Amino acid sequence: MYRTNTCGELRITNLNQEVTLAGWVQKARKFGGMIFVDLRDRYGITQLVFNQEIDAALCEQAAKLGREWVVQVTGKIAERSNKNPNIPTGDIEIIASKLTVLNPSETPPFTIEDESDGGDDLRMKYRYLDLRRTPVRANLELRHRMAFATRSYLNENRFLEVETPVLIGSTPEGARDFVVPSRMNPGEFYALPQSPQTLKQLLMVSGFDRYFQIVKCFRDEDLRADRQPEFTQIDCEMSFVEQEDILNIFEGLTKYLFKTIKNIDLPDFPRLPYADAMKLYGSDKPDTRFGMQFVEIKDLTTGKGFGVFDGAEYVGAIRVEGCASYTRKQIDELTEFVKRPQIGAKGLVYVRYDADGSLKSSVDKFYSPEDLQKWVEKTEAKPGDLILILCGVTEKTQKQLGELRLEMGARLGLRDKNQYNCLWVVDFPLLEYDEELNRYFAKHHPFTGPKPEDIPLLETNPGAVRANAYDIVINGVEVGGGSIRIHNSELQKKMFSVLGFSDEQAQAQFGFLMNAFKYGAPPHGGIAFGLDRFVSIFAGLDSIRDCIAFPKNNSGRDVMLDAPSVIAQEQLDELYLKIELPEK
Amino acid sequence: MYRTNTCGELRITNLNQEVTLAGWVQKARKFGGMIFVDLRDRYGITQLVFNQEIDAALCEQAAKLGREWVVQVTGKIAERSNKNPNIPTGDIEIIASKLTVLNPSETPPFTIEDESDGGDDLRMKYRYLDLRRTPVRANLELRHRMAFATRSYLNENRFLEVETPVLIGSTPEGARDFVVPSRMNPGEFYALPQSPQTLKQLLMVSGFDRYFQIVKCFRDEDLRADRQPEFTQIDCEMSFVEQEDILNIFEGLTKYLFKTIKNIDLPDFPRLPYADAMKLYGSDKPDTRFGMQFVEIKDLTTGKGFGVFDGAEYVGAIRVEGCASYTRKQIDELTEFVKRPQIGAKGLVYVRYDADGSLKSSVDKFYSPEDLQKWVEKTEAKPGDLILILCGVTEKTQKQLGELRLEMGARLGLRDKNQYNCLWVVDFPLLEYDEELNRYFAKHHPFTGPKPEDIPLLETNPGAVRANAYDIVINGVEVGGGSIRIHNSELQKKMFSVLGFSDEQAQAQFGFLMNAFKYGAPPHGGIAFGLDRFVSIFAGLDSIRDCIAFPKNNSGRDVMLDAPSVIAQEQLDELYLKIELPEK
Repeated sequence: MYRTNTCGELRITNLNQEVTLAGWVQKARKFGGMIFVDLRDRYGITQLVFNQEIDAALCEQAAKLGREWVVQVTGKIAERSNKNPNIPTGDIEIIASKLTVLNPSETPPFTIEDESDGGDDLRMKYRYLDLRRTPVRANLELRHRMAFATRSYLNENRFLEVETPVLIGSTPEGARDFVVPSRMNPGEFYALPQSPQTLKQLLMVSGFDRYFQIVKCFRDEDLRADRQPEFTQIDCEMSFVEQEDILNIFEGLTKYLFKTIKNIDLPDFPRLPYADAMKLYGSDKPDTRFGMQFVEIKDLTTGKGFGVFDGAEYVGAIRVEGCASYTRKQIDELTEFVKRPQIGAKGLVYVRYDADGSLKSSVDKFYSPEDLQKWVEKTEAKPGDLILILCGVTEKTQKQLGELRLEMGARLGLRDKNQYNCLWVVDFPLLEYDEELNRYFAKHHPFTGPKPEDIPLLETNPGAVRANAYDIVINGVEVGGGSIRIHNSELQKKMFSVLGFSDEQAQAQFGFLMNAFKYGAPPHGGIAFGLDRFVSIFAGLDSIRDCIAFPKNNSGRDVMLDAPSVIAQEQLDELYLKIELPEK
Repeated sequence: MYRTNTCGELRITNLNQEVTLAGWVQKARKFGGMIFVDLRDRYGITQLVFNQEIDAALCEQAAKLGREWVVQVTGKIAERSNKNPNIPTGDIEIIASKLTVLNPSETPPFTIEDESDGGDDLRMKYRYLDLRRTPVRANLELRHRMAFATRSYLNENRFLEVETPVLIGSTPEGARDFVVPSRMNPGEFYALPQSPQTLKQLLMVSGFDRYFQIVKCFRDEDLRADRQPEFTQIDCEMSFVEQEDILNIFEGLTKYLFKTIKNIDLPDFPRLPYADAMKLYGSDKPDTRFGMQFVEIKDLTTGKGFGVFDGAEYVGAIRVEGCASYTRKQIDELTEFVKRPQIGAKGLVYVRYDADGSLKSSVDKFYSPEDLQKWVEKTEAKPGDLILILCGVTEKTQKQLGELRLEMGARLGLRDKNQYNCLWVVDFPLLEYDEELNRYFAKHHPFTGPKPEDIPLLETNPGAVRANAYDIVINGVEVGGGSIRIHNSELQKKMFSVLGFSDEQAQAQFGFLMNAFKYGAPPHGGIAFGLDRFVSIFAGLDSIRDCIAFPKNNSGRDVMLDAPSVIAQEQLDELYLKIELPEK
């Protein structure tokens, strides 16, 4: 037996027990005739003491220990004279009587401390050492606990976890598939699933009633900071349900996770129609930790000779509390912010409502104090507030104003990582019009159901049709989304026709599902949560990368494994594949 | 709301309640002026009654219902006059007052009954309908419960579930990898993991202490009945452990599963050294539901003029209880059985120990009744028993005798699917000698640790070195296996050298792990269970296929999805790949 206890569990109540611990040398320091060693394992840190006067030979052995050496120590538990209140084992220490080096260590390329001196690239190459750092390991422990709690909740609610295949067929719609050449079927390829969407719908046709799976999904997209080529979904589907049933079950899951993991009792989640989300926040995933909702002031700005506002479809304002004191420089910064290409506004108009009640604006030339007073009233500004205004085409401007709102929220410290505001965004449009390709696309996927009352609009005004689709948003992050699916063959046919599919095309691409619908498909719907993002919110992380054990970099590479890599000619030959790289 | 209750939960205590159910029409039958419909969902079957006299229009509507239609019915719960004791809802029926057809169904291509009339191919093509059959769905429900219970047990024992990547690097050792071309790294490939072996060892280096994962693994092998290109492992690894610790934890898991899932209390598992398993059963995964252990009778058979036995390295017998009455034809059948190319014995010798005490053998010419009497004594045969004897080269003959033993066990009904005999097979040889390639191979993998006391033999007699490796065997099936790993760089180097690797080759293939071992690797070891096989044993299935939702056939095809398939030229171009099929 290598150890009687872990490095995290011994307390003053264990005094005088003889124990054996094993772990890593966090640090060793000499002090007089003693050597103190902090021994670390996953569970904590325990102080070891080697005393020259008691056992000189042992002390000499301990003097050779280096950082990250793996050792086994036997000794007696004593009370520390110099207690450390910051760690649970801080009242005791082990007076060592035996020391075995289980494995020495070379000096690690960076310090294994909460704040490491290693840069990102180095830490990724030596990810197995980075994972030794307590905050990194804590993220993965959190991930384990969230996944476990999710399974407990869903199991309790009669969901069955069913594994769907990873080697499936390629579908041309949607993002790019990763493909896998089949040796046994030369010239043919499997695809890795972007999600088990169609398979979970088939399970509903099979009568599984309530399905879930915590499952790896794959997308061959160019990567961004919060995207990985492989990611994990909490994928769920239910039969004989309406939107309300699904919202209730998964609001329940979210509350359960916050309660069991963070001991936070969340209030019921507001339900915000997509149209309102755009109107009030300029985003379909608004951060509702703070207000600063948009106020439309087009009616108050027109006809005063300011052509920019007069010509704009939309003029929207936000009231920024207590920022009337912003300097010219600060206002200029904000103007630069909204004019960045990623945001793309033409300019920024402000009104300072100074503490003394006076009004100062960048459009004083066109608007009298009385005009501005009306803006103040409509935005409910108070002395000391700053009003920021953008104008232009409605939706585009709303999105720009949304970015400005988030920036102001951040500047004012209103986006507290320890506060959690959850909401449902509902009533998404079913379709999106692509101006370039001159056709409608499904905003979600072609199996999303329209609201029954909007079905007649499919013929007359498809863009106005609302879907039974919903997203769950926490702190401005879309954590999950789903929809009620179409289960009626006729409606499905109509949907494909609106999307510009011929019957033959629909059959070729989604034939297996269309076919299954002929044999008694129940009404059904579902949702998928992005587990990586869900965990990163719980962990207070900005990127999903640090809640993934072995993430890939922005080129899709695992720098630790050095993957992907070239493979043997023999492997290519067996697959009947030839590589033809472009000329450099 | 689509339903107030499921089709499996209403009882006589619910009498007179008005309920709404939804489900599939299992069958409908007319009887007098009434129509009886069995409504089915995942939870059970409930009888609906439509009465001509009460509501003629409704009855007419019900008369149109076909098999597998999806309907919603509202009605009142009544006591059945003709109760059905075979189903939990058999005391009640629903007197229907409202019927809504949610979705009609075409006539399914085979019956959705416990015993279907559909052949294998048809049921695989329409797997979503096959999954509606109760016994098939029950297998997947069992799988869910086993996976859930496994997670509960491991979580309780402080294991962390950590997801390891699916897109990793290709390793040339072992079975063939599935590979995935990387678009972002042209000409390079990811590989799908055959197991997370090296990654879980890295997690031990990271100090995760106890890891598990229920994880998909992939092997591009030619398929057999119980093999799938993608399969699921319960993959586990622990630090600071010896073999005994691992055996205890996972014997505990197995007992926990039998208890929670089947309410069976298993006794402690015997531990059988590999050498004994071969000697007594001719197999490293013996079916110990019955005895019939081998008895070596070489010493009793030599020097009596029977050249076949005299020239054989090994002569082994099994005693088959009560089979002295086997006819010539039956003995001939057995002889044919052992002579089949898959088994490859040259012939079969028998001794009948008749009920009257007389002895009759196929080698009477060479052996006197006194000679045979000695065989009887050594095999402990009783009157009425049959002794079956094979001879030849030791290990080969033992395997043949093992097959014969299993056959006799099956014939005598000793392999009861409802009896479970578990054991550990331990002390596997570390290495296997490949006569053709004239070198040693790792029997498990090159990171498996030798028994410390056998390490000196690595230099002098590598074939005799025993590994700290173990398999868990249930009813003759290897359900899991693992080992204590090497964590010492020097020993690892020696191991590679025994396996014929140069330092450079070892570095090229396993450099990332060798490198990690330099920074304080703890002693560690682990195990992996084959979940598919584990479930199939619990379910009493012969093949793993029926405990997989969407399995592939022997050509690695998913006939329902029609995958793999050709992909678009555009996809190939993006990957810089060209297909060059051989001439037909």
